[in-house]
Amino acid sequence: MVDILHRVGCVAPLDDVYRAVTTIEGLAGWWTADTVGKSEVGGQLAFRFGEAGGFDMEIVDLDPAGHVRWRVTDGPAEWIGTEIDWRLERRGEYTIVLFKHEGWREPVEFMHHCSTRWATFLLSLKELTEQGRGRPFPDQVDISDWT
Amino acid sequence: MVDILHRVGCVAPLDDVYRAVTTIEGLAGWWTADTVGKSEVGGQLAFRFGEAGGFDMEIVDLDPAGHVRWRVTDGPAEWIGTEIDWRLERRGEYTIVLFKHEGWREPVEFMHHCSTRWATFLLSLKELTEQGRGRPFPDQVDISDWT
Repeated sequence: MVDILHRVGCVAPLDDVYRAVTTIEGLAGWWTADTVGKSEVGGQLAFRFGEAGGFDMEIVDLDPAGHVRWRVTDGPAEWIGTEIDWRLERRGEYTIVLFKHEGWREPVEFMHHCSTRWATFLLSLKELTEQGRGRPFPDQVDISDWT
Repeated sequence: MVDILHRVGCVAPLDDVYRAVTTIEGLAGWWTADTVGKSEVGGQLAFRFGEAGGFDMEIVDLDPAGHVRWRVTDGPAEWIGTEIDWRLERRGEYTIVLFKHEGWREPVEFMHHCSTRWATFLLSLKELTEQGRGRPFPDQVDISDWT
């Protein structure tokens, strides 16, 4: 089992970052504009990336003090059953985001890609919470021949 | 043991990407402007980031067909003994870079940071090889309260 880890700091209140990772409007502002679902524990979120497909998540935890956890229920085979964990902490003027995408079975090439891609979307989250505008799909930063 | 993985694709010849990760001038163009050393197997490279310190690497492998490997010999305690592995492959108009920073003992918060930071420097490598100009230290993208 191998994990993708990231850390960014947003110069924004924790509540703003929490909203950006828990509301449909927030998620659509930094990850993919095509986000639908119900933001409650046990609820489902569907994230789509045009022809590249997408992911369905079940919300496992939602704690406004600074913890969010999703379980992937549908999407690419490598993603199904993996979990995505968010911890938010205030430090000085920053809200620190500690991100984990846990439970990959093998460190396949697609996992390398997803690690870099998560970094670009986390920087998009930082831009959204600091400047009011992120770079969600389909306006994401170009990183390679893969979406 | 946990690893940092990334994948980027550069619209550039493999030789150009190889030079960017093996010559002092190349490394100074995307990672840190303060790079010195001798680019040969068994040689040492020293990367410095101002007050944040830096890393010393021993070059373990240099294969112009598409493989480079470094061993960290000095720097932050978490980095010493870890290894950084580069594989370059041509695919269509892209040179695909498969990057691993292997052998972390624990998934500490600093590892989360380094994972995101590597992503930004790999995108700097992409910019350098495609557009002739990267974003090495001290001009790197801001990601948090840490350098």
